[in-house]
Amino acid sequence: MKTAVLGTGIVGRTIAGGAARLGHEVVIGTRDPQATLRRTEGDTMGNPPFGVWHADHAEVGLLPFAEAAAYGENVVNATSGGSSLEILALAGAENLAGKVLIDVANPLDFSAGFPPTLLVKDTDSLGEQIQRAFPDAKVVKTLNTVNAAVMVDPRALADGEHSIFVSGNDTAAKATVTELLQGFGWKDVIDLGDISSARGTEMLLPIWLRLMNVLGTPAFNFRIVR
Amino acid sequence: MKTAVLGTGIVGRTIAGGAARLGHEVVIGTRDPQATLRRTEGDTMGNPPFGVWHADHAEVGLLPFAEAAAYGENVVNATSGGSSLEILALAGAENLAGKVLIDVANPLDFSAGFPPTLLVKDTDSLGEQIQRAFPDAKVVKTLNTVNAAVMVDPRALADGEHSIFVSGNDTAAKATVTELLQGFGWKDVIDLGDISSARGTEMLLPIWLRLMNVLGTPAFNFRIVR
Repeated sequence: MKTAVLGTGIVGRTIAGGAARLGHEVVIGTRDPQATLRRTEGDTMGNPPFGVWHADHAEVGLLPFAEAAAYGENVVNATSGGSSLEILALAGAENLAGKVLIDVANPLDFSAGFPPTLLVKDTDSLGEQIQRAFPDAKVVKTLNTVNAAVMVDPRALADGEHSIFVSGNDTAAKATVTELLQGFGWKDVIDLGDISSARGTEMLLPIWLRLMNVLGTPAFNFRIVR
Repeated sequence: MKTAVLGTGIVGRTIAGGAARLGHEVVIGTRDPQATLRRTEGDTMGNPPFGVWHADHAEVGLLPFAEAAAYGENVVNATSGGSSLEILALAGAENLAGKVLIDVANPLDFSAGFPPTLLVKDTDSLGEQIQRAFPDAKVVKTLNTVNAAVMVDPRALADGEHSIFVSGNDTAAKATVTELLQGFGWKDVIDLGDISSARGTEMLLPIWLRLMNVLGTPAFNFRIVR
């Protein structure tokens, strides 16, 4: 399986590394690969610059957005939510058409500081915006409700006894994504319905951020007890 | 403990019955007690009219909103979110001052059908609106993330291995509410912080409603696994 991950931040790196461990052939997409590799400063959360990570993950390629998207049979949107639509346009609708587009981004607005608010909510969602902008892609919203480390290694937290959600209009695409999630170790994958149900998971972010503050860790998750 | 519950719907009845079982002296507040008792039609969810319930719960009094609020040492807002501010005004700021005001309502807007949207969200919440409107009350948001039956009998679901949240500005008020919740059987009460954290729990409603649809039952809850 050829998987393209758009975004070089901690989420993109973690998903790329996770997919590579599952045996996928993985490329990461970025605006300008040489510029990305030249960066010497880490991010504000203490993660090292991309080149340091990449030196340990030589099996993962690095390509411009459009070339990465063209390469992938599945494409993961791991960009920040506020720039996702712009970056997916750079990736190119023709390179996303017919493919599963896994959207893990959250439309967070940090312009007024912490906690962020949501750029879109309640009557629309980023997942729906992406599906409308790229009608030939099969958008599946998932993994946006957990920290990057939990995304690809759920069993490191409470032996995986917690839940993850998928939202999307294409049943086969959700089955493909569910298989990928099970590969990562997810036990309880809940299909919430069509892509409009992404409103629900994106609107989890406000309580997620409060919980991170009071629990003092991003290593937690929701389990749907029934 | 004298507890007043504002609202005669299934949430108000269930909390009133639960508090009475804990030994509280309970009254329910309504606009016009005689009119409430005269109703002969149930609600759209198949619950019987108030009088039928009340005949089985003679220990619970029924008073006009202001008299009920004056009676209660603690007051529970179990009205529908869209009318909570109006009804609390009828209850009277002077009857709420200095008291713990437990807000279990959700600001749902059903005007465009199902699923409802939220009347207030993200940068404000119903909990905050109530606290601003009644600054001398000690508002604690809680229980709005579960079905009425789960509210007062959490151990009937997975032996109570799931979570409930409290949000409020007054630490002593949150301790009082936590004690009440533990009386109902709640094991994992998470203090999310000040009343602005009610934004997070109110914004759980969209995913809650989707989950109710796909699970086919309102008897579920979130467990925060950490």
